[in-house]
Parts: sequence; C-alpha cells; structure tokens
Amino acid sequence: MKLISFLHNGRESWGAVINDRVVDLSVASGCSTLAEFVGSDAYDKRDALLASANPGPALSEVQLLPVIPRPEKIWCAVRNYMDHHNEAIASGLQRELSEFPPLFLRTWRSQTAHNAPIVRPRVSETLDWEGELAVIIGKGGRDIAEADAHEHVAGYACYNEGSVREWQFHAKQIATGKNFEATGGFGPWMVTADEIEFGRALKLEVRLNGEIVQSSHTGNMIFDTRRLISYCSTISTLAPGDVIVTGTPAGVGFARKPPSYMKAGDVCEVEIEAVGVLRNPIVQQA
Amino acid sequence: MKLISFLHNGRESWGAVINDRVVDLSVASGCSTLAEFVGSDAYDKRDALLASANPGPALSEVQLLPVIPRPEKIWCAVRNYMDHHNEAIASGLQRELSEFPPLFLRTWRSQTAHNAPIVRPRVSETLDWEGELAVIIGKGGRDIAEADAHEHVAGYACYNEGSVREWQFHAKQIATGKNFEATGGFGPWMVTADEIEFGRALKLEVRLNGEIVQSSHTGNMIFDTRRLISYCSTISTLAPGDVIVTGTPAGVGFARKPPSYMKAGDVCEVEIEAVGVLRNPIVQQA
Repeated sequence: MKLISFLHNGRESWGAVINDRVVDLSVASGCSTLAEFVGSDAYDKRDALLASANPGPALSEVQLLPVIPRPEKIWCAVRNYMDHHNEAIASGLQRELSEFPPLFLRTWRSQTAHNAPIVRPRVSETLDWEGELAVIIGKGGRDIAEADAHEHVAGYACYNEGSVREWQFHAKQIATGKNFEATGGFGPWMVTADEIEFGRALKLEVRLNGEIVQSSHTGNMIFDTRRLISYCSTISTLAPGDVIVTGTPAGVGFARKPPSYMKAGDVCEVEIEAVGVLRNPIVQQA
Repeated sequence: MKLISFLHNGRESWGAVINDRVVDLSVASGCSTLAEFVGSDAYDKRDALLASANPGPALSEVQLLPVIPRPEKIWCAVRNYMDHHNEAIASGLQRELSEFPPLFLRTWRSQTAHNAPIVRPRVSETLDWEGELAVIIGKGGRDIAEADAHEHVAGYACYNEGSVREWQFHAKQIATGKNFEATGGFGPWMVTADEIEFGRALKLEVRLNGEIVQSSHTGNMIFDTRRLISYCSTISTLAPGDVIVTGTPAGVGFARKPPSYMKAGDVCEVEIEAVGVLRNPIVQQA
C-alpha cells in the first residue's frame, strides 16, 4: 500500500493512493496524522480499512506534503556506503571508518514534498544532492534489539538529503549544512513494509536533469537498517513516524571533478526500486 | 516575569510564577503552550494579562515540565567558551577554532525538567554535566540580522546539556551522545528578556553534590547570542519556542584529572545569575 500526507481544499490529511486516486483514511482510522496511524493498532488493519473507504480526489488534485510532514526525529546516517566514503576521501575529506554508525539530526522544517521545490539558499552556491532510502518507524520503542528491528518498520520512502556543502563544512558538526529550509525531498509516498522484504537490496538511482549521477543499491550500506534502528533506539525512544535516512552512495556533486551543484531550473529525481520516484525542481531562495 | 510549563491534575499547561504561586495563563491568553505564547501578540501584553489573572496552586504543588517541553528546534553550540576549548585540547581532543559557530541539534525527548531526574543510561558510565545558558526564541524569523537578534529573544533559562561522552565520541558527529533520553535539564523557568539586558555577562556556576565544578560567565562566549541567532536563522526559520543552548565553560567531567562523571544519587545544579537554579537528581536507567 502507498500512503501519503497531503493538503486538499486547505485541509491537511493523509491517506492511501489506489489507481491514482486518493483515499482519505483519517476519519475512518481515528488518526489525524500518518505518523499517528503507523504507530496505532489501526495500522495492522489497514487493508480492511481501505476496503471499506471511498476513493476521493485524483492524486493530481491534491498537494503532496513530505511523507511525514513533522517527524519527531529525523536521524541521518553519514558515509554509510563504502563507495561514497571512498569518493569523499578522494576529495580530501579524510575520515576513519567508525565502529559505530555516524549520525546527525535533521529538523522537519528542512523537508520538502514530492514535486515541491528544493530551495537553493542565497548564502551558498554548493547545494548538493544525496539520494537515500528513508525508513519510517511504525511501532515505537527503546533499546530495540537488532533481531526485532523489522517489527518497528512501517515502510520506506525516497529521500533527497539536500546538503549545502559550504555550510556543512563550516565546522566539524555537519548539521548546519544539512538543515537548510526546504532542502530535503521526502516522497512521493511511503510504501508499506509488507511489500518489501526486510533487508532486500533495492536499486537506487539519482538523476539530475535526466542524467544518472548516482547508481547503487541499498545492499551496499555499511550499517544496515537493523543496526541503525537498534542504535538510534538505544539513545532515545523511537516514536511512530520517526525517520531514519540511511545514507547516500557515490556520485554526489562535491566529489565530482569538477564539482557540480544544483541551481535554479534543475530537476533532481531519486528513484528507488519498489518504492518510487521522488522528483524535485530546484528554485532559488527569494 | 518567570514563566513555566507544568502538569497539574493531569493537565499540561503553562503560566507565571508569582510569590511561589502559579498563575495559569493559558485560557486568558488563548495560547495552549508557552511556545505559542512567546510568539504571539499576547506576549507583549503579558503584564496586563497577569494583573487580571488569579493565582492558582503553589509552585510546589505542580509538576514542572522542561521550560519548553517540545521545541521545534534545539540548536546547541559546541566549544563556545575558550576555557572549555582549551581544556578539551588538553584532554587530547584537538580541534581548530572555527570561523563559524559549530552547532548540533538535540531533540525534545532528550530534555528533562527541574527537579526531575537526569537519567544515566545503562550503556555508558560517562554521563557528564554541561551548564549552559538557554536562549528561548519569541518572535520567529528567517535571515535575522545580528543587529535585530535581540528582538527575537523571549527569555532565558538554565540548561544542563547532559552528555554521554562515550557515545558522543563514537564517531565525528556528536549528536548521538547528546541526545540520550532525559539527559538535558531545562528549567526551572524562563526569565523574560525585559529583566536581563541583552548581552549582559551573567555568572554561571555548576555544582555537583554541592561542589563547584564549573564557574564562569556568559561574557566568555566565543560566538555571542547575537551571532548564534543570526547564524541559525540563516539555515531555517526560527520558530517561537525554539531554543539555542549557548555552550559550556571549562570544568566538565571528561576534562578533569582523573575524569569524573555523574552517577545515581548525585545531584547536579546549574545556577545562572538573574535566571535561577536548575537542580536535577541523577538516576540510573531502569
């Protein structure tokens, strides 16, 4: 099942997408947000819920929001693909591989929806793409064992972890360049976990203006989803709708020779096998 | 004026503290949270609002919450006091001073209230204290000029930016060790900005079981509040109730010889001149 968050007639809601029609499930489920739904008992009965609901507007008639518009937490993995780790070193960014997952946080205000703009800030010319698989947490929990991690996954989505490189490297902590407003594409939808075998290697491709710039698969992660969920949940309780963005493979703009960045008028797409295609036009901050 | 968030009779609310009595202002102001209030027009009329309200329970009868229980963003400055920078280097943590403020993010789930426990996690014995001045944003904004920064400050509070050192140093990104559940003391209240001249150097002292472990003043910051607000607001819109935690001076546990950490039964206090005393007992994670 594909689940989205959206605006329609000025109202924020969420629902399923069936045959390009949107089925609003907020009233029938008693959950006002998708984050609330994926953590609820109603989530396990989603097929019956959908079967008894009526299709609403066409998908093209609603305004998509980021899959989870305001996650409590967005944990992001750093250098979680060996090929990306190596290209960063080749670009002069020396770093040892860590025994533990390197992670930073994004805030929800840094997110943007499918088809909505990724905004290139006025203060920098180094807005870069990073195609990544986003894992959306369903049932929350603390100190989750790796062996139980799959029970806490509600689904998967495409993420473009847009990064302002100049600000990312202002200091040792990279969260600054990773949190510019409306730079993190998240969509178009969440595919529920039942449709994708846990741990399956999914082809991941990023295209800038149609040209393939990243091509890998999620089996190349250094720290897998199981490990990331367990590690994050040791720090604090994972809540329904929390997002773990699992890192990007080689092919980012700053590591290219010469470096290449996104500018107004560009279109960036992140495609993940069995998940979908996230598309964002780039616009300049007004 | 001193403003708090609290629980009373099972209901979450907020209000002012006058002569050890709590004056609930949520209904009269039309704002259900303190974060909403500090960004509203009602905030500028808070004296009149308070004058027309009735005192409620004694302060000792309510359960305090973190001053802002769920800030949209908690930006934290790293190594923002020269003496702390130097003690970290002396402990073997080499780092160049940056031209830009080093910052990371905490999540609201890492916070804990005045008199509530700071929780020492099971996975580490290196829970450390960091007394800091927290700046609470009132009116929000993007791209705020340093000259206008003071207009966006609602008030100040004490923060104990509790840090699990072992996890902080698992990798280069320190947010992991800085986000353990219920490790960040935030309270007891917010003192409104009108009571403290903007930029005034405030004495800051941390006591562990009564012994002074940190003693400095906020005039020793490397990047001042003006700069931090402007920098953070360039990244994304600062929202009412956002918190900027401004860094800690020398005297933290990991830099002591031998290193010293907090354990169950300890009591840690952060006192800031003209703001108050934040007190937290340490308990072991169950």
